[in-house]
Amino acid sequence: MNKAGSRHFVDVDLGDRSYQIIIGEEIISEAEKLIAPLRLGKKKIIVTDQNVARNHLISLRKALENGGHDPVDVILKPGEQTKSFSGLRELLESILKLGVDRDTCLIALGGGVVGDVAGFAASTILRGIHLIQIPTSLLAMVDSSVGGKTAINTPQGKNLVGTFYQPRLVISDTASLRTLPNRELLSGYAEIVKYGLLGDALFFEWLEENGDKVIDCNPVAIAHAVATSCRSKALIVTKDEREGGVRALLNLGHTFGHALETETGFSETLLHGEAVSIGITMAFDLSVRMGLCPGIEARRATSHLKKIGLPVALKSIEGIDWSSDRLISHMARDKKVRNGNINFVLTKGIGKAFVCEDVHMADVKAIIDKNLNS
Amino acid sequence: MNKAGSRHFVDVDLGDRSYQIIIGEEIISEAEKLIAPLRLGKKKIIVTDQNVARNHLISLRKALENGGHDPVDVILKPGEQTKSFSGLRELLESILKLGVDRDTCLIALGGGVVGDVAGFAASTILRGIHLIQIPTSLLAMVDSSVGGKTAINTPQGKNLVGTFYQPRLVISDTASLRTLPNRELLSGYAEIVKYGLLGDALFFEWLEENGDKVIDCNPVAIAHAVATSCRSKALIVTKDEREGGVRALLNLGHTFGHALETETGFSETLLHGEAVSIGITMAFDLSVRMGLCPGIEARRATSHLKKIGLPVALKSIEGIDWSSDRLISHMARDKKVRNGNINFVLTKGIGKAFVCEDVHMADVKAIIDKNLNS
Repeated sequence: MNKAGSRHFVDVDLGDRSYQIIIGEEIISEAEKLIAPLRLGKKKIIVTDQNVARNHLISLRKALENGGHDPVDVILKPGEQTKSFSGLRELLESILKLGVDRDTCLIALGGGVVGDVAGFAASTILRGIHLIQIPTSLLAMVDSSVGGKTAINTPQGKNLVGTFYQPRLVISDTASLRTLPNRELLSGYAEIVKYGLLGDALFFEWLEENGDKVIDCNPVAIAHAVATSCRSKALIVTKDEREGGVRALLNLGHTFGHALETETGFSETLLHGEAVSIGITMAFDLSVRMGLCPGIEARRATSHLKKIGLPVALKSIEGIDWSSDRLISHMARDKKVRNGNINFVLTKGIGKAFVCEDVHMADVKAIIDKNLNS
Repeated sequence: MNKAGSRHFVDVDLGDRSYQIIIGEEIISEAEKLIAPLRLGKKKIIVTDQNVARNHLISLRKALENGGHDPVDVILKPGEQTKSFSGLRELLESILKLGVDRDTCLIALGGGVVGDVAGFAASTILRGIHLIQIPTSLLAMVDSSVGGKTAINTPQGKNLVGTFYQPRLVISDTASLRTLPNRELLSGYAEIVKYGLLGDALFFEWLEENGDKVIDCNPVAIAHAVATSCRSKALIVTKDEREGGVRALLNLGHTFGHALETETGFSETLLHGEAVSIGITMAFDLSVRMGLCPGIEARRATSHLKKIGLPVALKSIEGIDWSSDRLISHMARDKKVRNGNINFVLTKGIGKAFVCEDVHMADVKAIIDKNLNS
């Protein structure tokens, strides 16, 4: 199949804030052609980090220069520390020093950290300049590049300060995924599986068949997986841009997952997608325990995650002394607990997630304990 | 006339971001009754500064406490320095330490600085919590409380970083204006005159008759003036929320004014409204010079500003060695100059402002020189 054959276009329909996601192989080198139809300003500022710059900055610069542009760049230190108040301040001042006007276009080239902090900056400079996202990690392609969430971390917690701000265009070049470590690819894959499990049984079936190809970065398979995930998320975000209702479904596996990440200090010990994989497993188990989901469906979900190489059991994470009580207390601090009950995304089977408004904490604890002993 | 007789309600119609401005005498003490119908969360955080706290915090707290609330407060240092990156960071961290959730309601009680920085904080905490503005300066009541602009200053310039974020309610208590120094009242009054001059000749006529009463804080007169100004601005903002077209009319007198403020370092030497008053005078003079506006209309505008006590000539500002070349260069840096021409808000007479797209810099310089020698 030729390159063009694996190109996908996803429309995110948000009225006058609508935008398109273009997914394809080696399309960073075509950036200028893809951006030109938007008729944004001539001034382009690329924000990236040192690692991503090494792999992709030259090809992006060349594409823009061939279109007659003279892009400038701001290169951040890689890592979560950049997504902080002082990181944001430095970035804003670097950009302001370069000189901006209403037509200036900020291009965020990188993974989730770059996208989040550069998106935040773009949303506040002159109260909002044009933003183009070029996500280079699988997680950023299928998650943070859709929905317009930007954020930084503060001493009080992750992502507590940020904005909703839609990009004008997202360019997802699947070739950039080849430079990712396998563990990071798998972490992004957990979010892809989530879209199948929460509302698209056919897509989950396709993943059971083709998951290996996705992880191998087969251009056709990965483009299909990314596009389908973006389409799912776009549909949900369109219905609920500012997170009042149906957008909660995107949190399948995330209430458990977030507690696990809190316990491991959001460190390399447990990547986001790994936490989500265990969290999805627990959400299915909890659904079975509550009589909502057939056991066979839960086993099918878990076995796919396991087969592809994602963790599903707490004890597979080395060096952590897990305690269900501590995880429960993380959840309680994170979410609103009313009379010992908590809101949870549960499921009636593969592709059938829903928000359950009164889950007993005792059941949650039982599921964690069961997983610990599995 | 009784208190209720001077109460005004202005609707700012922005779809699902619509809100109401309530204007009246001693209505801070009724805050709870005014806020309750919105059914926001129980948790209220008041952000104010030391000066405003001294005059109004007790009465606001009492009103909320009588409604069964237990408001907490964050008290900022007064002055422009608070509207900075470090001021914002301190404020955000103070608020996060108090604990927030999606239903938390931030109440900004104070002048423009408090409104701008607290509004910015509210727009970014959890990507946006409820915001109520209680402006206590005349300038904040008629200008910054309508339109949802929030901002901080940076070393590169004023208001370069911020968001568009609409409050849920604005409560303008005209009694709070009695604690303002006369010079600040006059500064706010310049913006009121601007609304008459830019599009409402009848209102300008009313101001010619009743301006003195407004400056004396006569409850009926001031409520009418504030409400009419807010209604004007609301109408313009409704048509152009994010500043693409007609919103530019609000800049009548501001291109000149901003250059004057730049020259005086945005200091106490020249308050914003004083700069706007001189700027309006120059915009009318420029319109006359270009043959757009009858001289008699310009003289009428200027004479009202002068009569009320606002400056209209540069030489009335003591201790500044004005230079038309330097002012022109401030404008050029501030605005887009194309082939020696600049966009300007000019007027065909009282109530007839429009955006003129090609004003010659030579004419602008001539007008400044004329003012300098007047």
